[in-house]
Amino acid sequence: MRLRKVANAKQIIESSTYVINNPKDYKGKYKTLFNNENEIHIEIGMGKGDFIIEMAKHNKNINFIGIEMYDSVLVRAVQKLENQTLENLKLIRFDATYIEDIFDREIDQIYLNFSDPWPKNRCKKRRLTSKIFLKRYDKIFKNNCHIIQKTDNRKLFEFSLISYIEYDYKIKDISLNLHEDEKEIIMSEYEKRFVKMNLPIYMVEVYKTLHVK
Amino acid sequence: MRLRKVANAKQIIESSTYVINNPKDYKGKYKTLFNNENEIHIEIGMGKGDFIIEMAKHNKNINFIGIEMYDSVLVRAVQKLENQTLENLKLIRFDATYIEDIFDREIDQIYLNFSDPWPKNRCKKRRLTSKIFLKRYDKIFKNNCHIIQKTDNRKLFEFSLISYIEYDYKIKDISLNLHEDEKEIIMSEYEKRFVKMNLPIYMVEVYKTLHVK
Repeated sequence: MRLRKVANAKQIIESSTYVINNPKDYKGKYKTLFNNENEIHIEIGMGKGDFIIEMAKHNKNINFIGIEMYDSVLVRAVQKLENQTLENLKLIRFDATYIEDIFDREIDQIYLNFSDPWPKNRCKKRRLTSKIFLKRYDKIFKNNCHIIQKTDNRKLFEFSLISYIEYDYKIKDISLNLHEDEKEIIMSEYEKRFVKMNLPIYMVEVYKTLHVK
Repeated sequence: MRLRKVANAKQIIESSTYVINNPKDYKGKYKTLFNNENEIHIEIGMGKGDFIIEMAKHNKNINFIGIEMYDSVLVRAVQKLENQTLENLKLIRFDATYIEDIFDREIDQIYLNFSDPWPKNRCKKRRLTSKIFLKRYDKIFKNNCHIIQKTDNRKLFEFSLISYIEYDYKIKDISLNLHEDEKEIIMSEYEKRFVKMNLPIYMVEVYKTLHVK
């Protein structure tokens, strides 16, 4: 994504009330931050935040946390939120490779929207749906694993399906052309472009019951 | 499929050396019919036979059995075979609903090509990938269940994926646009039309190890 650089992005992010600057300190106790017992849903790779901000507005009884590793993108979400008050939304600048360091059995749902496909075979471990990531997610989910993924990338989607099933997920719902099926859905900025181009968006919702040891 | 009616279709079918007129008599002993220990692959709903005839020609070390319930379609396959000698191919006119009556733990692979999608929800049990059919297949597979499905019907494909996974199949391979991935494959007559129209063909290969009791 090519973006004009925002001056002082780092400072803007760090001074926002939406941003958790010390996420490791909240590991296992995010509900104290939201001050309620509601479900916590996270989006990994939230980009400029269109999806998670809209989700937070429309689902006040769910807590949302957006995770993004790039300042240059995250700052856009922070700017959008400047004059808004959303008690059920927090943002974290963090590399999801280390997601187990910031969450501990407290997440109810993960959203993966238009994740980097890492097309080269030697990079497949970096895909957010690789087995190595699914193992990490096992440690952050509360009781049941529940992932909703959307992508326009066919190869990533095929890879993800094989990976989920290999790792004992079941399919709750799937669409190989989401916008032919549904008319009104909350879209990421990236998704809006694809729908305009009339390209299929793939969606899958998978779940797995964790055997608590 | 709209077809000119072939006069005496029933007689043509019954007199063909390719057709097994008494399939129940071979239940559990199809290998005696082929007189070898090679794998047996079946196609359920073989239509006019383009796919299975080509497969039999190109894979002499595998035995193929095509199953089709309609005389009007099966007769076309029989006519194509009139001047050919394929020792590894047999055809059966039969309704796959009762497939357990003609096979017993002797099938290595099932092909499902462009099966009837039965789009109405109340007909979903008739889909060849419904749980009720997957249960039947468990009884005819030798050791491992192995199904390769191709279809142009998105809804049938989505339904099939959920059904396979629910029934503990794993995904060996999947393509959401088969002809973008592969250049030379053996196609059914139906498939050729779709490729010409540049519509995506969905393919999935699923497997499951049977726990022999």
